[in-house]
Amino acid sequence: MTKLQTLISEKPWVAWAVFGATVVIVFLAGLFGASVVERRSEAQQRFQIVKPIGEWEPRNEIWGENFPREFESYYKTSDTNFASKYGGSKTVDMLARDPNLVVLWAGYAFAKDYNQGRGHFYAIKDIRNTLRTNQPQPATCWTCKSTDVPRLMSKMGASDFYKKTWNELGSEVVNMIGCQDCHDPKSMNLRITRPALAEAFQAMGKDIKTATHQEMRSLVCAQCHVEYYFKGKTEKYLTFPWKYGFTVEDMEKYYDEVEHVDYVHALSRTPILKAQHPDFELFKMGIHAERGVACADCHMPYKSEGGVKFSDHHMQSPLNNISGSCQVCHRESEATLTKNVNDRQDKIIELLHTAETSMVKAHIEAKIRQAQWRWDYIAASHGGSFHAPVEAGRILGASIQKAGEARIELAKILAVLNVKTPIAFPDISTKEKAQKFINLDMQKLKLDKAEFLNKVIPEWDKKAAERQSKMNQ
Amino acid sequence: MTKLQTLISEKPWVAWAVFGATVVIVFLAGLFGASVVERRSEAQQRFQIVKPIGEWEPRNEIWGENFPREFESYYKTSDTNFASKYGGSKTVDMLARDPNLVVLWAGYAFAKDYNQGRGHFYAIKDIRNTLRTNQPQPATCWTCKSTDVPRLMSKMGASDFYKKTWNELGSEVVNMIGCQDCHDPKSMNLRITRPALAEAFQAMGKDIKTATHQEMRSLVCAQCHVEYYFKGKTEKYLTFPWKYGFTVEDMEKYYDEVEHVDYVHALSRTPILKAQHPDFELFKMGIHAERGVACADCHMPYKSEGGVKFSDHHMQSPLNNISGSCQVCHRESEATLTKNVNDRQDKIIELLHTAETSMVKAHIEAKIRQAQWRWDYIAASHGGSFHAPVEAGRILGASIQKAGEARIELAKILAVLNVKTPIAFPDISTKEKAQKFINLDMQKLKLDKAEFLNKVIPEWDKKAAERQSKMNQ
Repeated sequence: MTKLQTLISEKPWVAWAVFGATVVIVFLAGLFGASVVERRSEAQQRFQIVKPIGEWEPRNEIWGENFPREFESYYKTSDTNFASKYGGSKTVDMLARDPNLVVLWAGYAFAKDYNQGRGHFYAIKDIRNTLRTNQPQPATCWTCKSTDVPRLMSKMGASDFYKKTWNELGSEVVNMIGCQDCHDPKSMNLRITRPALAEAFQAMGKDIKTATHQEMRSLVCAQCHVEYYFKGKTEKYLTFPWKYGFTVEDMEKYYDEVEHVDYVHALSRTPILKAQHPDFELFKMGIHAERGVACADCHMPYKSEGGVKFSDHHMQSPLNNISGSCQVCHRESEATLTKNVNDRQDKIIELLHTAETSMVKAHIEAKIRQAQWRWDYIAASHGGSFHAPVEAGRILGASIQKAGEARIELAKILAVLNVKTPIAFPDISTKEKAQKFINLDMQKLKLDKAEFLNKVIPEWDKKAAERQSKMNQ
Repeated sequence: MTKLQTLISEKPWVAWAVFGATVVIVFLAGLFGASVVERRSEAQQRFQIVKPIGEWEPRNEIWGENFPREFESYYKTSDTNFASKYGGSKTVDMLARDPNLVVLWAGYAFAKDYNQGRGHFYAIKDIRNTLRTNQPQPATCWTCKSTDVPRLMSKMGASDFYKKTWNELGSEVVNMIGCQDCHDPKSMNLRITRPALAEAFQAMGKDIKTATHQEMRSLVCAQCHVEYYFKGKTEKYLTFPWKYGFTVEDMEKYYDEVEHVDYVHALSRTPILKAQHPDFELFKMGIHAERGVACADCHMPYKSEGGVKFSDHHMQSPLNNISGSCQVCHRESEATLTKNVNDRQDKIIELLHTAETSMVKAHIEAKIRQAQWRWDYIAASHGGSFHAPVEAGRILGASIQKAGEARIELAKILAVLNVKTPIAFPDISTKEKAQKFINLDMQKLKLDKAEFLNKVIPEWDKKAAERQSKMNQ
């Protein structure tokens, strides 16, 4: 007999104690196991709708009750922190930083006012505040600014929406960019809510419905972060010039074919193409797109909180979150990766300024349209010098060459006309002097804007609040 | 008792059989183990000198008896196969492919003859054959072409070597580039045999002796694959213009400071800087150098034969050996990686041709020196559009801008002089027409060269053979 057997035969309560202890331990282990299984299934569960969301619900707060993590991180776009050395920590007055822009855009609204873009949070606020806009603005200008747009388009159709003015829909478009713009309210799948992108795919002979989930993680951004124009004098139909493809020449070919002109230059009388923000197009030319990386991989990387993995909806420069974005693939230090980005930006910014200087010199009429389109294509892109630095360099080199050709033609004319060169150059050393040079009445513009903000906007907001409070009932 | 015990007690020979079999198995295992250990130590042993190599032995065959794998792979450089779509499978007559070059180099020997470079195997043969060289050539031209150079420099000193002519040393410089150029004959360590590189480091305040082994795997290449000039009208002292750094502007600053001019343009009378092959410098500006990759990592990757790992001495385009080079780090398919390289090259070649066309138009005098230096800097680099495409784009953009400025000045002058523009352009559609346009007497050049090759060279080779046969005794 073993010692235990001896012990039990002498003191039988010991056996019962061992039995009881075992029961307790097994029970606790069972509880713990159940808890683990439950947490896992919680983490696997994609989401739970605690409060139903209407098909075209524009208010982020309603979506946010179901998705607090996404909602809270999205609202961090209110804290606009530009990581790039060319951004700085606050919004930059681009015209004050580089008064050449005033001259290049003479005859176009950007000469009045142009600040570096801020986070999605400010979409409605900033487009109301800029001197570029006022009451008779076409509604098309709102297409990318508000979750109210899909709602209105579902009611009135896209083409009718585009034909309206700000005046007519002022109280309807009040909610900033948000959940509704990219997500289906039932399945939360990504969806395209702006017809222009789907139509541009069609024009290229493609069907956007065949896009994979990973492609959609870029395409929802491509609804807005692209080159576009308003087609038709009264239709103002939002159109992407992608018929012939994604390169700067492809789009130029399209614009030339439809004889599109964004503005006639106030000094040179040249019909000018203004690039908007061809970010998706330039991104497609770069190595990250080539490797299948999506916008969201770097600008909305996954993170974990409380055992739940979710996509960080604080869209921002990846330089603000290198460990969550770049370092998922790249093993280099934060300092090295930051230097690599800055190096690319430095080289392209240098070429950008060379192109700019050449064109400002050629502002008097000459064949400056092609050169300016190429320069603007890169100047207007937000991330071109990182996304596709080689393509950006190629385009700027062509811009510089075309500006040179224009100035040669000009030099001949001036010499024959016996105009002494170099022409006495106006003082455009500050934004104010440059705006005066191109004859902008800035005081009147500012007074008009103040009236718009102080009288019109409060009316719109009041009406919108009344309308939305009824939606809540 | 177990069954075995029963068996043994009944049949004792069984025990002996088991014992015997065990002995045999253990013995064989021991033999196998010894063989494994021996093979491992063979593989670990760096090398074994079976035939001693003299301190300045120029003949690759002597080194090759000790290092058959390196020797045999090195001799594959005789099979020049250009992987790039811009190379083709045979040596390309660059002037015939692009007659613009004849005009751009009018007044310089490259307008006479310029073929795409071939493998190291052809170093002596090709420099003898080109129309650019003849008997009075400075010996400095040989510095990078032969293993006889370190031998001669050790005897007479570098500066005396540079002062000699081909005529004086014709029978001494006969062995192609080879082992001696990069390796110490005792330790086989990499070593710098050309003083220009060490002196350039000194000029930058650096000591090349502190270079790591990985750095040396690029620096031995940088002895030759760099920008250089011959300093002094009689000294012809081989010098790298690195005093201010590795950028195109740094070198221009140095050349301007020492008032260096490679040639005066035959048409425009402009003092021109000719770029040689700034490959190491451009490589340093790119992401591969930034990540610590050495020339040898891609152009001489490791391979295995018979359990021995060695560096493949068949220097060639990595596109010929993607699995051994690119795919060591990059997981993409060969097709994808090839496309990525071609995309970069396409964009930069496009800018290169834009710059070229601008400059040919400006060949009549104008301030074309800065533009041409920048164009040539990229045109003369072998791998710039892959090694550092963003830097290459930046430089070409500046070239185009400067060519434009020059042409504007020109346009003014021509208009005032009442010269009708565009100027009637000469027919330079072929190499021959372009050479005629710049007044080159090609027939005389070819006759002179034939005499040199048929009369002088055989004499040199005969003397060299006699001299070397004495070395063998």
